[in-house]
Parts: sequence; structure tokens; C-alpha cells
Amino acid sequence: MGVSSAAPRSAWHRWASLSCLKSSPGRVPPCAPVPLQRGNRVPALGVCSPWAAGFRALRGFHAAPRRRREVALTSERFGVRRLPFARVGDRDVAFFERVLPGRVVTDPEELKPFNVDWLQSVRGCSQLMLKPQTTAEVSQILRYCYERNLAVNPQGGNTGLVGGSVPVFDEIILSTALMNQIISFDKVSGILVCQAGCILEKLNEYVEEQGFVMPLDLGAKGSCHIGGNVATNAGGLRLLRYGSLRGTVLGLEVVLADGSALDCLASLRKDNTGYDLKQLFIGSEGTLGVITAVSILCPQKPKAVNLAFLGCQSFTKVLETFTTCRAMLGEILSAYEFMDEKCMELVERHLKLSSPVTGSPFYVLIETSGSNSTHDEEKLNSFLEQAMTSGLATDGTVATDDKKIKALWSLRERITEALTHDGYVYKYDISLPVGKLYDLVTDTRARLGPRAKNVVGYGHLGDGNLHLNITAESYSHSLLEAIEPFVYEWTARCNGSISAEHGLGFKKKQFIAYSKAKEAVLLMQRFKAMLDPKGILNPYKMLPSGS
Amino acid sequence: MGVSSAAPRSAWHRWASLSCLKSSPGRVPPCAPVPLQRGNRVPALGVCSPWAAGFRALRGFHAAPRRRREVALTSERFGVRRLPFARVGDRDVAFFERVLPGRVVTDPEELKPFNVDWLQSVRGCSQLMLKPQTTAEVSQILRYCYERNLAVNPQGGNTGLVGGSVPVFDEIILSTALMNQIISFDKVSGILVCQAGCILEKLNEYVEEQGFVMPLDLGAKGSCHIGGNVATNAGGLRLLRYGSLRGTVLGLEVVLADGSALDCLASLRKDNTGYDLKQLFIGSEGTLGVITAVSILCPQKPKAVNLAFLGCQSFTKVLETFTTCRAMLGEILSAYEFMDEKCMELVERHLKLSSPVTGSPFYVLIETSGSNSTHDEEKLNSFLEQAMTSGLATDGTVATDDKKIKALWSLRERITEALTHDGYVYKYDISLPVGKLYDLVTDTRARLGPRAKNVVGYGHLGDGNLHLNITAESYSHSLLEAIEPFVYEWTARCNGSISAEHGLGFKKKQFIAYSKAKEAVLLMQRFKAMLDPKGILNPYKMLPSGS
Repeated sequence: MGVSSAAPRSAWHRWASLSCLKSSPGRVPPCAPVPLQRGNRVPALGVCSPWAAGFRALRGFHAAPRRRREVALTSERFGVRRLPFARVGDRDVAFFERVLPGRVVTDPEELKPFNVDWLQSVRGCSQLMLKPQTTAEVSQILRYCYERNLAVNPQGGNTGLVGGSVPVFDEIILSTALMNQIISFDKVSGILVCQAGCILEKLNEYVEEQGFVMPLDLGAKGSCHIGGNVATNAGGLRLLRYGSLRGTVLGLEVVLADGSALDCLASLRKDNTGYDLKQLFIGSEGTLGVITAVSILCPQKPKAVNLAFLGCQSFTKVLETFTTCRAMLGEILSAYEFMDEKCMELVERHLKLSSPVTGSPFYVLIETSGSNSTHDEEKLNSFLEQAMTSGLATDGTVATDDKKIKALWSLRERITEALTHDGYVYKYDISLPVGKLYDLVTDTRARLGPRAKNVVGYGHLGDGNLHLNITAESYSHSLLEAIEPFVYEWTARCNGSISAEHGLGFKKKQFIAYSKAKEAVLLMQRFKAMLDPKGILNPYKMLPSGS
Repeated sequence: MGVSSAAPRSAWHRWASLSCLKSSPGRVPPCAPVPLQRGNRVPALGVCSPWAAGFRALRGFHAAPRRRREVALTSERFGVRRLPFARVGDRDVAFFERVLPGRVVTDPEELKPFNVDWLQSVRGCSQLMLKPQTTAEVSQILRYCYERNLAVNPQGGNTGLVGGSVPVFDEIILSTALMNQIISFDKVSGILVCQAGCILEKLNEYVEEQGFVMPLDLGAKGSCHIGGNVATNAGGLRLLRYGSLRGTVLGLEVVLADGSALDCLASLRKDNTGYDLKQLFIGSEGTLGVITAVSILCPQKPKAVNLAFLGCQSFTKVLETFTTCRAMLGEILSAYEFMDEKCMELVERHLKLSSPVTGSPFYVLIETSGSNSTHDEEKLNSFLEQAMTSGLATDGTVATDDKKIKALWSLRERITEALTHDGYVYKYDISLPVGKLYDLVTDTRARLGPRAKNVVGYGHLGDGNLHLNITAESYSHSLLEAIEPFVYEWTARCNGSISAEHGLGFKKKQFIAYSKAKEAVLLMQRFKAMLDPKGILNPYKMLPSGS
């Protein structure tokens, strides 16, 4: 790496030369080997996917050690009243057993993990989980439930963070776990068509073998289902480069509340024939229909990937580093993530991951993905020199090989997991103009003082997306009242969004008005009433009750 | 340019070295200077836009010479029956004069160009055009029209190609021509918020000054309005690189049929709070609401742009050239357009543009846009050497300076215009798997024989989008019957779309079933009935009648 003579030499001691990292694959990675992640959880029943075998050994709920807490029932903690849906009876179970022989779960123990969210913050009491394998089966199930007025909770990998993926009461859990078949992949266009229950990471592995990547990537990739990703309009780590699912999802197959199937499973990059119905289901969180299959455009797999991990002395420097690298890295910039020092402390304390760069109040992860490693390294080197000589970053490391890249990424991706080990987590997922992004963390920290155990900020800075997280020893209503609506009011004053990518689910639905006009919410309710007049699909979620 | 010794030297005589083109700006461009294009047409009334002054001199309808043909009334040519809307009376005109003083057009001569589409293929007989400047005025107009049951035809730049932008009968023309103000532009994020009537090219000039570009570009850019672009989900030349408007439009303000305004004008890259209502209006062709303002994400202006124009000896070579350049150019590939030799003949004959590359049955335009000119030229040179040595292309030229790039682009962008000079044009805008793209042209040519004057194929190959055009001396119903439903059936057999980017408008609406399932069309009709129960917004368009 060419080091400008003006660079402060002391800052470079940790820098690994790009060529050095590449030529010494045996070198010890700066972080510990990537441990088991959220992907450890797999469905309890046998999975017919061709890739399931290797994962069976990992069966179990949250293999990573986590404190066992009794999760309060959502209905009790939040004082929710059950809507007048019918209750599941023996005749219903018998019907489902006929439709889905051997794929009906009624054992309370087996149902437990599917009634609780990954954060262990909400809990339902469903007594029935159904595991269809085909769209026709989903149709049969919903037609029956619609006639019987039985409420249904569609569930993918159950990795949602806003309580949208588990029942509030006794809704039937409709799991996509066994809908995990790839339908087709076109190697020329990169268009993948698959069932909704395919696990994101497995899809990525599949398309990588053909020279492509999935257009989205997120920490929960090892567990989350593509159908759930689409139903929640998941954002994640690659949005900066490949855009949102609104642009990359080309088609959907959806079963509506009354059981009718809607085939919008086109595999065309462009199609302007009528209203784009699929868009309504993207991000509808299972309240308008059950997504059963997805057609998605995969970008080509980049030939060269580099990752730089830098320490910055202030959030202003984080912002300046972003504008500088956006200008200098241009089309090869594929991620720009930031995290504060508290995040790094928690990752180290709870997950024993050590960072190769320390001693800064802020850290940024900068990923480049391109088609020419020489060009990319030149661009990255120029940027790094500029960042160091101008004092934007004071320390850093660079990785080009896959193992080290994964290790560095885990420092960012596993923050969510580290937080769950720190106590009860109050999670906020906010869109803001980038300049104001960290002010919300500072203000919240000052407001809560010692009432909070930790107040941390990290996120997808390139997308203006802050993850504000507050931990406490346990859930406390008074602490919640100190945070909400404070955080939402703060966000609304800056014309931000109170949910950038997590959705509203159960936990945020009452706050929609902070980000959406009243007329817009009313129109949403009209759409819901039109498509699901009995309201059986994922009730108590997304739209505010009582309005 | 480094030329491999294996390259056939004879093929290189026309190749301009990248460095040579750059270092000799005085060199005569390979094509004639870019003449006036579709942008010549401007609204007949004074425009309050700050940029209008320079364009006033060009006032007039289709300044480029075109044969004057009497355009048949749509209602007569296609045998349409008027729906039972009220008719505009003197009291209505008086009302509108009060709301929009001086911005109500009733002069039949002045109305003429707004009753006829750009292709001169459909004609309405509206006697009233309204030119609001604000969303509040649009609300007042629609509230009144809704109460009075008066039909309304929203109109932007009137550059649509499927008869969607002009009245079929006497619908009131609601023009966005005077809604041309930029509301805000954020130089950090690149987010532009503007009124719907801003002209695309003017917006691009504006954001270019700040170091960004509009995420879409199309031949009609000099006339088309951003509101119309969004209402028709325009695709165009940059989709390959920046994706569709579904991903880049961040917010919309829309006035519904009853006059109520819907504010979804967010300026956030990510926002998952409730259903994404704006998506329903993107591509709804003015049938669900009138778009009054748009928030859109602009990518950074590339620092280096190169354009290669190559001749290929077969369509198979065109496809192979695509996969080769996609792999070798990677993230800097920003357009891959193809056209057949017939297109080039027409552009030369009718517009007097001469191509620097001749003698091939197919031509491709390959654009790169990147952040480092040296890197980009290296990538492009490597690709071009590969293309020439392996015989993918047999001849070609390269341009890097702006003037020559524009001149080369005009060969592609002005094909549509050249076709209108060739006679009556039957236009088809088809999405297909790329491998089958040109078979439709060949099959159509064989089927029509001498009944067609010319059958040509060109389009956005990178997006799988073919523009199939058939010309004849004049409109003939029997020729139409030889083309339709043949073209649609052919497309449906390949699971293509009968409208990739033009929309359905008036001319394609009856054929939606070739690309959309019956259940989907029924659901679209339910959305229409919910949002516009009287059906006053752009009637006779997009959705099939009588179903």
C-alpha cells in the first residue's frame, strides 16, 4: 500500500497491506473464527430441502448461550383484548391433519419457540402450527380458516424484531418452513424463482455457485425466509448497492385471506401491464396475504470484495468519511455501516469477539464489491490514504480474503445478538437525514441517564438508517414510557421514519401516525378491509387498532 | 489502445483510440450535430418555470418536419362508446376560470395538440384544458369534477406511446405543465423533491450541476414530465444501471379522484411504516389519482462516461457480446442497447443521421459510467479487444467526450422519431427472455411480408426489452388484424410481457390478459372501483372494458 509521507505513521501500525493480506492466507485472522450465529435455529420438524441435512445437527432454539427469561404473554404485558375470532377445536385439527398429514403441530413444547419472538419480548399462546408444502395447501388452509373465522399468523424464520412474526393470542401459526424449494434459476438473467420458505443464506449459497448473489443480506440470513424478507420489505446490508426489494422483486405468488391464489410470479425485469399488485404485498407483514413464492433479480457475484474497518474520533468524521468514500469509491462502494464504541464493548463482552481496531468512539465498516481486484484495491488505497492523511480515520484494518471479511462483518452483524445478552432490549429502527442520525442516540442517552443499562447506536449510515438500542436488566414499563413517545416525537420533528426496515409488527403499530399522514393510514385500512374483510390475517399487527 | 496481435487488423480501421478521441476535441464528430428532438414541443401557454425562457423560441408542435396526416378520432377508428359522464357546460368553465384565472384553455386551435398523441395515432375532442400550479388547485378541480361526474384526462408532456395521455372523447385535460417547481434538493443524499410537471431533461440539468444525475433517461426527456414518467413507470436507458422507479421514487403526493390529497412525499431511503401506498400510483397511468409531486433518489453523476458503438454479424453475437461485456465491465456497464440495420436505414433516410459504423445486420451501444476514467478505459479496452479478437463484433467506434457521446446516442434515441416519418407506426414494447428477443421480429417480418413497409427491432437488450415496430403507408385495419393478436400470443407463449415500459393506455388495454392472470385483473378493477368509484380518472384506459 502506498503510504503518503504526510500520513501520521503512528496510525498505520495496525494497517494490513492489501497485498499482504491476500498473499498470506495462513495468517491468523484479526477476529476469532466466526461462531454459530442466528442461523443455528432450524425448524423442529424434518425439512425436505436438499440442503437441510447438514444443518440438522444444529437443531435447537438459539444454540448460542442466552439467559433464559420467562417471557410475559403479550396480551398481559400490553393489555390487548382478543378479537372475536373462532377458537381452534378438535374438528379443525382433524381437518388440517387430513390436508397436511404429519405436518400439523399441537405439542405445546414443540410450539413454544414459535410462540416467542427472537428477542424474547412478546409471546403468544397458539396451540396449532401448520406446515404446508405447496401453494395449493396454503389455499386450502386459508379458505377453511376464512370460512371458520379462524385467525392466522403467517411465520417465516421468526427473526422479526417488532413482534410481527408470532401470535398475540391463539392465532394458528402458518409456517413456511417446508416451502423451501427452488423453482428455477436463469443463469443468463440472474432471475431466481423459489418458494417463500427458502432460507436467505441457502439461496445466496445456491446462486453464488452460479456466479450471482442475492440482492439482500442481513444478520439473520441463516434463519430468515425469503418470503418473510419480502413480507417485511427487509433492507439490510446490501441495500446501498442493490436497492430495495421494491426494485429487485420481480414477481410474487400470494394466497389471499379467502384462500384464492394470486399469480403475479413474473420473471421479467420490466412489465407495465396494469397495477403492480405485488408491491402491495411487499412489506405488508402478512396482513394482506401469504406470500408463497418469490421471483427475484440477483446481481452478478462481484469478483473482488474488500472490507475496511476504521476508527473515527467523532460522528462528524464518520459523516465526512462517508461522503469522501462515496465520491472516491463510487460504483464499487457496497456497504457503509457505522457503530459506536458501546456496540463494540457489548460484542466483546457477550460474544468474546475482539476487534482489531480499538480506542475510537466510532467505527465504520466500508465494503467494496467490484469486477476488477486491481482497480478496486487502487480505489480503496487512494481513499484510505486520503482518509488517514486528512484525519478522517485514525486507525483501521483491511481484509480481502473471505474468512477475514466474515470475521470483520461479524463485529457488525452480531451486535443485535450481543444486545440480547445484555438484558431486555428496547429496539428502535429509525430513518433520519444522515446529519442528525447520531443526535438521537446522544439525546436519548442524556434523557435516560442511569435508568438505562446501555444506549447504543449503529446502522446503515449509507441509507440514513439508525438502529438505536436501549438495554435494561429487565422490562420496565416506566422506562418504556421514558423512551416512547420521546423517540418517535424526536424522529417526527426531523421528518424521519419510526421504522426504516423492521416494519411495525405488534410493537410499533400504534405509532404509525408519527410517520404517516392520517389520510394514508385510513387508506391502508381500506385496503386491509377490502383484501381481508374478516381481518383473519396476522391480526393485532401493523395497522393501529381502534381507529 | 493495446491491440492484441491476434486481432484481425482489417476490422480496426474505424476504431478510434480512447486517448485519441479524448485528446482531439476539435475532431469532427462521427455523426451530424445533435438536431432538435422531441424536446422541441413546449406548452402553448407561458411557463413560469425558471428555465422556460430559453425554450420559448422553440415553441410549436413537433418542430422537426413531419408529414401532416389527419388523425382519425379514436372513438370512430376504434368504435368506442362514450360513458355516461356529464358534459362540460358554461357554468363549469366559469367555475374553473375562478379557480385558475387565465389558466383555462377553451380555444379549439390551442387545444389541438393536446388532443392528439405524439405518434398521431389517437385523437380525442376535449374542449377544455386546465393548468393548475398547485396541489390545492388540483384538489379543487377534482373535487368539483367528482361531484359533477366530469371525466378527467391527466396529461404530462404527452409523449406516451399507447394513447394513454390524450382524451378519447371530451374528457377535461388536466395538464401538469405549470407545476414545474423544484421543491428541494439535498446535496448529501441526492434526494430531489419537485412538482410533477418538471421536464425530465431540465431536472437532469439541475441535478447535474450539483453532481448527480436523474436515475432515468429516455428519448422523450426534452418533453416528458417527471409526473408522467412516474405515472407510467417509465423505464428507459438507465434502468440497467439504476433500477426501476419502484426503487428510486421515495415519495409521492397524489390527489385522488374525489379531490382528497394523499401526502406520501417522504424523502427517506428506507421507510417501512405501513403499506407502501405510493407504489400503487407508480405505473397506474393516471387512473387512480393525479400525481402532483415526486421525491426521487438521484445517483451521483459518474466522473467518466464512455460509449462504444459496435456492429455484430448476428443476433447471437449481440447476445454473446452482452454476456461478455456484463462480465468484463461489471459495475460500470450502464446501458446495453441494440438495433437492427433497418433502424439505422430509417434514421439515415428520415433524419439524415449517418452512422460511423455500417455494413452489419445488428448494432449495439454499450455505455460505461464510472468514477475513475483510467480504470473504466482499461476495462472497456480489455472488453473491446476480447470482442474483436473473438469475432463478437466486426466493426465499431468509441466516444468519451460529451458531444460525440450525444451524437452516438442520437442514433439510438431517435429511432422512434425516424419511424414516425416512415408512415403509420404499429408499436410493440415487449419483455421477453433475451435469447428469444429477436425471433419475434423475424417471425413478424415473415408473417407480414410485403404488407408491411418496414418491420424493425431495437431496444434495451440488457433489460430483455424489445421495441418491435411495423410501419405502413397509412393505418389499415386488416394489417392490424394480421399483427394482433399474433404478437401478443407469441409473447404470451414465452411468458413475456406485452408492455415492458410503455404501459397499456388506450391501445393495449384489451390485451392485458396475455400478461396478467384473470384474478389479478379482477383485483385491479376492485382497486380502481375503490379509489375512483365513478371512474372519472382517465377513463377508457389501462383496464379492459366490459369485463
